[in-house]
Amino acid sequence: MTNSEIRYVRSLKDKKTRAEAGEFVVESEKLVLEAIASSFEVRLICYCGDNVDRRIVSHPAAQTVDPKTMERISLLASPSPALAVVGMPAAATAGDIATLAADPDALCLALDGVRDPGNLGTIVRIADWFGIDAVLASPDTVELFNPKTIQSTMGSIFRKKVIYCDLTEAARAFSAAGAAVYGTFLDGENIYGQKLERHALVVMGSESFGIRDYLSGSVTKRLFIPPYPAGGTGCESLNVSAATAVVCSEFRRNY
Amino acid sequence: MTNSEIRYVRSLKDKKTRAEAGEFVVESEKLVLEAIASSFEVRLICYCGDNVDRRIVSHPAAQTVDPKTMERISLLASPSPALAVVGMPAAATAGDIATLAADPDALCLALDGVRDPGNLGTIVRIADWFGIDAVLASPDTVELFNPKTIQSTMGSIFRKKVIYCDLTEAARAFSAAGAAVYGTFLDGENIYGQKLERHALVVMGSESFGIRDYLSGSVTKRLFIPPYPAGGTGCESLNVSAATAVVCSEFRRNY
Repeated sequence: MTNSEIRYVRSLKDKKTRAEAGEFVVESEKLVLEAIASSFEVRLICYCGDNVDRRIVSHPAAQTVDPKTMERISLLASPSPALAVVGMPAAATAGDIATLAADPDALCLALDGVRDPGNLGTIVRIADWFGIDAVLASPDTVELFNPKTIQSTMGSIFRKKVIYCDLTEAARAFSAAGAAVYGTFLDGENIYGQKLERHALVVMGSESFGIRDYLSGSVTKRLFIPPYPAGGTGCESLNVSAATAVVCSEFRRNY
Repeated sequence: MTNSEIRYVRSLKDKKTRAEAGEFVVESEKLVLEAIASSFEVRLICYCGDNVDRRIVSHPAAQTVDPKTMERISLLASPSPALAVVGMPAAATAGDIATLAADPDALCLALDGVRDPGNLGTIVRIADWFGIDAVLASPDTVELFNPKTIQSTMGSIFRKKVIYCDLTEAARAFSAAGAAVYGTFLDGENIYGQKLERHALVVMGSESFGIRDYLSGSVTKRLFIPPYPAGGTGCESLNVSAATAVVCSEFRRNY
């Protein structure tokens, strides 16, 4: 690798550079393999050592680098044996959201301002496990291509559509298509007692603010995951990714 | 604060120093308030600025520090207005575990080698929300007093008992007391179809290894959170904290 190539890969640790280049970095053999197996365009692979999976080594965009170079380009405290530069998929359009909303089998999540990269990545992985059709996210939700987010998805980023969009418009599209719009609130109804619709958008609030006022009016059914025992134990809330796991499980357990 | 006091607080960022001193650090007004309200011994509070909650300012162990000092003692990238040094609770004994196991209402978690501090903290918070009686942890589970773990608990560390112990012995104690010993495995039975016992120990595996061989034989009922659709989508697993949230919800939803 030339020094200028090394500098370019390193520069992708910045959100602004990633957005301008339309490329992001994934690290670890597992994630590079997931990238290769996906519909994403893998533009460069750097690997290091003799024990790297041959699907990585034989990729047309692969080149071997020495450990010092890997240390320079890696964002990890302990660099892994493989790193890839991957092209971002095309942004979704309003038409894509309308198409999703119109599908009577579509169950989507909407994240209102989730800020923690690990939470976003974990939520994308949860959405993948539970076959959620897409994850919508307000424009101020943390960036999907943040390295911590990508690592937390454990590869689900390559399978699960995440669409940044205006959530009030998305909620309107789902409502217009006859879908329910759920949201979790501390004063919502016990989720365990509800008949949960299959065709739905489920809004999850952010770590600090929950579902904000601008959006709460778009929610037609307010849900709550009750603590145990019923009065609670002093714990104020569940982490948003833990709550998302419970909610997705509840929506899927009867199908 | 003297320089030697500042050095001491800073030294508590190291696990070994924490263990020797029997003290740990919590940061943020919320966590310091939770510490004050708990049964833990708050040995020192440092706060900074004029808008700090008066329950902090009026605490006998509280002292005001200037922003420069707060920056020096804080482990956070952006220091919060309050920090406390808190004494660790006494370690649990085998007798404590036997007492827990003998309680016919006790539902406990057992973590087999969870390595990520954020996962451990999130699991303690989940255990708090769902009224889990205690969280047992194998000796190689990440340390509870790691600053990232503490921040992730959002205060649940002050309410929820976490006991590091030999999990095969703990499983034996629960079995001997007539409790079920559950565990999650990729080849377990669909959790949604099970009658889940109220008196139980539920083993959760680590991020990389799941429930290890030394312990899997102690599990009497193997559970699985099914993906949707049934065959899965390529996603290999749920994050351990997400899985713990779903499992706790399933155990509590019918009570």
